Amino acid sequence: MTIAVTDTAPTEAIATETVLSVDAMGGDNGPATVVAGLALFLGKCPDAKVILHGPETELSPLLTAKNLTNSVTIHDASEVVKMSDKPSSVVRNGKKTSMWSAIEAVRSGQAQVCVSCGNTGGLMAMSMLRLRKAEGVNRPAIACLWPSHNPSGFNVMLDAGADIRADQDDLLAYAMMGASYARNGLDITRPRVGLLNVGVEKHKGRAELKVAHELIAGAADAGDFEYIGFVEGGDLPSDRVDVIVTDGFTGNVALKTGEGTANLIAGLLRTNLKANPLSMLGAILAQGALKRLRKKVDPRGVNGGVFLGLNHTVIKSHGSADPTGVAAAISLAYRLAQSGFSDKLAARVASAVSLAQDTRDETDAKS
Amino acid sequence: MTIAVTDTAPTEAIATETVLSVDAMGGDNGPATVVAGLALFLGKCPDAKVILHGPETELSPLLTAKNLTNSVTIHDASEVVKMSDKPSSVVRNGKKTSMWSAIEAVRSGQAQVCVSCGNTGGLMAMSMLRLRKAEGVNRPAIACLWPSHNPSGFNVMLDAGADIRADQDDLLAYAMMGASYARNGLDITRPRVGLLNVGVEKHKGRAELKVAHELIAGAADAGDFEYIGFVEGGDLPSDRVDVIVTDGFTGNVALKTGEGTANLIAGLLRTNLKANPLSMLGAILAQGALKRLRKKVDPRGVNGGVFLGLNHTVIKSHGSADPTGVAAAISLAYRLAQSGFSDKLAARVASAVSLAQDTRDETDAKS
Repeated sequence: MTIAVTDTAPTEAIATETVLSVDAMGGDNGPATVVAGLALFLGKCPDAKVILHGPETELSPLLTAKNLTNSVTIHDASEVVKMSDKPSSVVRNGKKTSMWSAIEAVRSGQAQVCVSCGNTGGLMAMSMLRLRKAEGVNRPAIACLWPSHNPSGFNVMLDAGADIRADQDDLLAYAMMGASYARNGLDITRPRVGLLNVGVEKHKGRAELKVAHELIAGAADAGDFEYIGFVEGGDLPSDRVDVIVTDGFTGNVALKTGEGTANLIAGLLRTNLKANPLSMLGAILAQGALKRLRKKVDPRGVNGGVFLGLNHTVIKSHGSADPTGVAAAISLAYRLAQSGFSDKLAARVASAVSLAQDTRDETDAKS
Repeated sequence: MTIAVTDTAPTEAIATETVLSVDAMGGDNGPATVVAGLALFLGKCPDAKVILHGPETELSPLLTAKNLTNSVTIHDASEVVKMSDKPSSVVRNGKKTSMWSAIEAVRSGQAQVCVSCGNTGGLMAMSMLRLRKAEGVNRPAIACLWPSHNPSGFNVMLDAGADIRADQDDLLAYAMMGASYARNGLDITRPRVGLLNVGVEKHKGRAELKVAHELIAGAADAGDFEYIGFVEGGDLPSDRVDVIVTDGFTGNVALKTGEGTANLIAGLLRTNLKANPLSMLGAILAQGALKRLRKKVDPRGVNGGVFLGLNHTVIKSHGSADPTGVAAAISLAYRLAQSGFSDKLAARVASAVSLAQDTRDETDAKS
């Protein structure tokens, strides 16, 4: 069942069915967890096809045990990118890894969207090398969905950790990419964009944030979004903004802080409800409500950071994702693949960036 | 009842009773909220004395209405630091403000700890100008308490937003100050200190973090804490660390993100429990458990960022604090005043810094 990985784009007859490329290796919990997640996903979307990347001898029995051999094809890849590998070494020495193979499958057009639980830095470096940055993008970003008070139930935050730095131009590009993702992924016609800072007052924050503030405000019309100015950490789940823009260091800390806080509260809720028979009875009566709450804020339900700013879509699943989390990331990949998101995003960002450039040239000419 | 503010330290006979200096002005909700918070606090600690700073004509009727005139003395100050005032202008033009007056009361020794709901930047700038930085401290920091799985129920995080920058030496000083605060404030003999980053691997993060990583590790014995290395946002509430060190930009975003997440979940819990009669009944039976949970994670319960690294202790209460939040900040001030925290901290930081300096000199001599 092994198919040779081709490095050239197929000339014609790209399958019209939805094919996902899934890296089976590199997650904290090993390939059995990824295959278990695949089984959950395929139970809900039986028409999807999946190319699974990793050592065939290891993956084949797992697929057979879950009865997935009809939907899943293995691309044999003997090596694995480890969590501790540095991005630079992954790029240099990673050609035989399952991650490389998974990226090649979207590059060659065999699959539409790639999913990996592996090392974020390695995945981003390899994706940049093989898929190349989209026109007008200097630093690609990872966008994540944040549970919020908005009607869609989510806000978009980026960068969630692709790069620990972001200058003013990167933040501008993030605003455009995030708005485009919110428009295409969450069906928000004119997304409201906010720039994350330590206060909403104009004089607050680092120098590059003050410049980005002006740049994003100036590009709002061209990028077809509404710029609402600085927002704070407390606005991440708020309904006054749809897209929150920040550098990848701050975004990563915020994301993990939000997850940690949600887990803390869930744990305390469990402990307190078990404290006495009366509250246990109450918890049983309210279990439907508690389950809905859990589903809403469970980080596994929104697992999957989307790399924005490349020529194909790559989804980074949480390294410690369990089968439910893996299934969520693959489901997100399926939705995006079906909507033709990659092409739409690239077109929109390219046009938005060139429009913004026009605006800046115009401003320069006037001044 | 107005007492002239003296600018000189009293020569002798400093009152042995616990006196707190409270800025009545500058919060989002005005002096009535501060006085209501004072009333809550004094209901629990009737022996405490308070100097309240603000326009006497405005404060006097509020105190009379709450029957607080026996415990509270007014220091008349006609002007108010506004939330929108820049720190530089506050320092230049703020001499007649209630905030200045509140700081002067601890500077002169009339009170032991100062509390203000006002503009954080202004309060920090004014505190630095009038109280001066403690020996060995370049950038003072704001330490906040974070609800956690630890036995004490809290972790210490700093800097929560005193300064948007922190270099490697500042991060080292934060580790020492945070450990000292955890030891004195939370009774943890040998606190575990972690440095906030986007991953626990050594090669991750910004350059200054890698240097700080080495510096803090080297100073652990001298500072009498255990250094556990890099931690992530998800560790803020964890029980594997007691003190989390970060720059004030990241810390501020994390703090507000945690609060926002807690508020989101509380709101969703309320909505879901009201969704049908069965879950409403469940909620009534479990209300004791839910109340304990709310108390544990309610940001108002841990209101009060402590300025560390000055020659006196200043507590910044949340600008939007309600009476419960104000009372929490004043209660924290009372506990710290009673423990003689300011002097202990200064002594510990000074000795730790000089010990660390010795260690560094030794290392330099060896290398």
